Amino acid sequence: MPSYKAPLRDTRFLLNEVFDFPAHYRSLANGQDATPDMVDAILGECAKLCEEVIAPLYHSGDEEGCHLENGEVRTPKGYKEAYDAYVAGGWQGLSHPVEYGGQGLPMSLGALKQEMLGTANWPFSMYPGLSLGAMNTLMQHGTEEQKRTYLTPLTEGRWAGTMCLTEPQCGTDLGQVKTRADANADGSYALTGTKIFISSGDHDLTENIIHIVLARLPDAPKGTRGISLFIVPKFLPGADGGLGPRNGVSCGALEKKMGIKASATCVMNFDGATGYLIGPPNKGLECMFTFMNSARIGTAIQGVATAELAYQGALAYARERRSMRALSGTKEPGEVADVLMHHGDVRRMLLTQKAIAEGGRALVYLATQYADRMIEGILQNDTGKYEHWDDKLGFLTPILKGCLTELGLESANLGMQVFGGHGYIREHGMEQIVRDARIATLYEGTTGIQALDLLGRKVLLMTQGKAVRDFTGQMARFAVDLIKQEPAMRGRALTLLKLAGQWNVLTLRIALRARKDRDLVGTASHDFLMYAGYAALAYAWALQEAAARRHLREGGSESEDFYRAKLATSDFYFDRLLPRAKGHAAAMTKPTGSVMGLPGEHFVFE
Amino acid sequence: MPSYKAPLRDTRFLLNEVFDFPAHYRSLANGQDATPDMVDAILGECAKLCEEVIAPLYHSGDEEGCHLENGEVRTPKGYKEAYDAYVAGGWQGLSHPVEYGGQGLPMSLGALKQEMLGTANWPFSMYPGLSLGAMNTLMQHGTEEQKRTYLTPLTEGRWAGTMCLTEPQCGTDLGQVKTRADANADGSYALTGTKIFISSGDHDLTENIIHIVLARLPDAPKGTRGISLFIVPKFLPGADGGLGPRNGVSCGALEKKMGIKASATCVMNFDGATGYLIGPPNKGLECMFTFMNSARIGTAIQGVATAELAYQGALAYARERRSMRALSGTKEPGEVADVLMHHGDVRRMLLTQKAIAEGGRALVYLATQYADRMIEGILQNDTGKYEHWDDKLGFLTPILKGCLTELGLESANLGMQVFGGHGYIREHGMEQIVRDARIATLYEGTTGIQALDLLGRKVLLMTQGKAVRDFTGQMARFAVDLIKQEPAMRGRALTLLKLAGQWNVLTLRIALRARKDRDLVGTASHDFLMYAGYAALAYAWALQEAAARRHLREGGSESEDFYRAKLATSDFYFDRLLPRAKGHAAAMTKPTGSVMGLPGEHFVFE
Repeated sequence: MPSYKAPLRDTRFLLNEVFDFPAHYRSLANGQDATPDMVDAILGECAKLCEEVIAPLYHSGDEEGCHLENGEVRTPKGYKEAYDAYVAGGWQGLSHPVEYGGQGLPMSLGALKQEMLGTANWPFSMYPGLSLGAMNTLMQHGTEEQKRTYLTPLTEGRWAGTMCLTEPQCGTDLGQVKTRADANADGSYALTGTKIFISSGDHDLTENIIHIVLARLPDAPKGTRGISLFIVPKFLPGADGGLGPRNGVSCGALEKKMGIKASATCVMNFDGATGYLIGPPNKGLECMFTFMNSARIGTAIQGVATAELAYQGALAYARERRSMRALSGTKEPGEVADVLMHHGDVRRMLLTQKAIAEGGRALVYLATQYADRMIEGILQNDTGKYEHWDDKLGFLTPILKGCLTELGLESANLGMQVFGGHGYIREHGMEQIVRDARIATLYEGTTGIQALDLLGRKVLLMTQGKAVRDFTGQMARFAVDLIKQEPAMRGRALTLLKLAGQWNVLTLRIALRARKDRDLVGTASHDFLMYAGYAALAYAWALQEAAARRHLREGGSESEDFYRAKLATSDFYFDRLLPRAKGHAAAMTKPTGSVMGLPGEHFVFE
Repeated sequence: MPSYKAPLRDTRFLLNEVFDFPAHYRSLANGQDATPDMVDAILGECAKLCEEVIAPLYHSGDEEGCHLENGEVRTPKGYKEAYDAYVAGGWQGLSHPVEYGGQGLPMSLGALKQEMLGTANWPFSMYPGLSLGAMNTLMQHGTEEQKRTYLTPLTEGRWAGTMCLTEPQCGTDLGQVKTRADANADGSYALTGTKIFISSGDHDLTENIIHIVLARLPDAPKGTRGISLFIVPKFLPGADGGLGPRNGVSCGALEKKMGIKASATCVMNFDGATGYLIGPPNKGLECMFTFMNSARIGTAIQGVATAELAYQGALAYARERRSMRALSGTKEPGEVADVLMHHGDVRRMLLTQKAIAEGGRALVYLATQYADRMIEGILQNDTGKYEHWDDKLGFLTPILKGCLTELGLESANLGMQVFGGHGYIREHGMEQIVRDARIATLYEGTTGIQALDLLGRKVLLMTQGKAVRDFTGQMARFAVDLIKQEPAMRGRALTLLKLAGQWNVLTLRIALRARKDRDLVGTASHDFLMYAGYAALAYAWALQEAAARRHLREGGSESEDFYRAKLATSDFYFDRLLPRAKGHAAAMTKPTGSVMGLPGEHFVFE
């Protein structure tokens, strides 16, 4: 059973030694309170809560699951107490405005918290996580009254929130949404319809639950341009900030799922439920998608969390389990066999997990700096700033959400694999990580949707390749500096330059051919996404290696072993994982015919 | 919920049009009864049993699982009846000798049966599957009396069998086995110890269960050279072929597992249980491993089965679920959206599954021809023949077991992925395929063990690279013929020749460097294995494409669409999956330092 230990040394390395968050926070409008001391205290407290209170409920929550009793969802034993401890620590409002009960700290600190919470216990973290989605929507699109009424109790964690998008007939294709909103005489609406896959749709952690719901006004245009957004509370707000009457929204069933069993996935029935319009009519999708990038980064974090937890579990086992002798000769002659750590293929699996967890973490931290700037733009009503940084974040988002969740799942599977047959047994906890990780490539847009979002929308349609040129330009400038600053990294720098060039060439070739053959976007997108992920991870590893080498050269640090471990992991990444990009590069420009040519009715013959 | 339909058209294509099984059987000592009519009748009957009786229990068996009641295992509802129908059809003894109640047909037909049975319901198939392991061991190493007593009821399916190897402290490293066998006065032995992960260790399908058990004699040397093999029946055989007293072996617990829940995975306690030595003392491992290659091919089949079942499920969904419009323009204007089949990335996933299922099936059929020859060698007491074909089978075995189970798991995950969020819900049945498939890379030797078996043992140690030279020679001869026979396949032929050359160069480079740096075998083995798998699949697809092109050129066939689908799938394989071999080729020869360099104590810092 893996017992979670927050990777504080790695976190501090990224914050202070790779990305210079202290300078970032000093330059950020709402970053002044995020002093190094404050950040360090937050990390320590968060780690304590996650290790001692949240993580111990991970396995028991899976065994027990959620239950629907008389129309109300019961979360597993201990969840309510853990949630109360989380709320008491003020964690829910960490990155939300002081005027609505939050601590007003930068969004990036919220992501750090989310990573620890999610690694300790992903299904638990989904309850406060979904609330954040509702809070962000209210913060950006709610009226002042709506913010006062809903945002404050949500920020304080007294209430929770959900996002109600999916219906039985549509998930990705939200233009098919059927839920109806009919106007009431008092300016509110009566919502009728069924939503499925609603995470945290009902539970017993908070006294009220605020649903943000996509629905159609009676006169709305068809498709995506006729969808509006509504606030539908479980209990209507009372006059005194307390609870009014029970609203006509209820959990009809809990889905039986492969994993994340402690997270309630609800079928929600809206039976003329009272709702309040948020944002302009028929602009629901735009409103919902304002924070889509940050929500998806939140899911990308699940990839890092999965890789980290599976790594911790597998490493502990590999250090203790004895089997066979090392190929280069017996390492522990006094023992019945050598520990697994001495076997090359076990090390390959562990280092794959480590490279993904630490490389992915670096990319997430980079993305959260962009998110901080984007939020600054919102807070300062600076549309130009908002758009600039949202675009930078928007390019990284599908790469991180798409690739890190795929690689997180791979890491989880490797964690089981290190355990051999024992990995398949529930009591060891490794198979739970795989089952829980499996959702990450499906929700918040499948990997295929991320791939289309990246190549079709963000690279080709919105920027005609500029998004790739900008990011590879950043990689290339870093590589050129590297040749001057770190001569030992000349090889790495050349690899980065080659990647940057190849990525642009591939993008250009696809852009040119896609004009005549639109199918190319669909047939190339997956390989383009994975290629982008490996290229971005190469950048992340070179950044870390450069920082580690700088500190090693300066000498005298207590962390020399830590820095050398970074160098070794970077070696591993460039030698063993980056080569996968070759296959993706070769596949993505192949003719569309090898994917689109076979007629649909000829996929099987009897 | 996928409903299984046996892929009879594909099976007949491989048997009759690619590998010429009719000629193979005519030339085989025990193949005379396997006439084309007989084979076709067997396929049809087997498909019927699997589709109508076995497959419908797949999902319900998972939901119900096995239960331990008063020390006896109860299988899920319907299993006993399905097993009885299977036995009544004479399926268990299909490929075992007539003199012990079997039908004496070639082993390859048993593999065909195993594929259908396993695709319909893998956990069910494990009950008769484990018996086959016991039967093969008895057939090869049992005395005539042991065969009469045990092999006949096993072949008839009245009794079942198990293989008891693993103990809590050891799985791979069987030298650590502790179970003790003390001599009794009557020539039998008293076995004492605990075995874990024993599939079909107890159940209610048969009146008796015969355990084949690894244990140590009191004076045995340490390690693998001191292990003997014993027959330990659940009920001692009675004088009249009936059942005698209950033996001191019992199921202590059922493991709770990620999947294959309808297959009983038992902790077996041996409390002075009466056992009978089989084979020479201290030669237990050699005896156990006689049929290791065929057992592992049996597990490789799980990869094919998984890919096929997940493909069937995903294809049905992709033909029916509507979401978004095709990138190249609306395909079904009268509908609310186009079906998933029109989306490039969905097709990529389906074609990946198809290429793996059909390519893997072709490799398995090729391997079973070798297995038939190997058995012929045993039946004819022709050691040279046995060894020649066992070596050829032995080279393919780790490639098939290692790669096809990994790719089968990938296919299962793609099947879920096509379903989007619905794939994660239990009722659709796709997540069960993933959970069930997950065991395949763990048991019968993990993927890492297959990789070491391939590179370390079969390529370097046993044949100094000759195994690769032989197989690539076969590929190359085929490619050279192809250039003459199928000019349209010139490109494919050149690809195969390039692969054959590259594979030999890589092998040679590893062989030379491994002399000085033994760790190279461990750090290169995984990439070598996967490279071998993609190269072998390329050969399998070229074989199929060549057969399809030949038939298309001859013209006038009702199957032209089928053959063209083969061409399209071959295109997909060479364009989209084979490029992965590039990454493996690049990674395998990298310095061992990037895997072995990081000291074990520096894998994590706090």
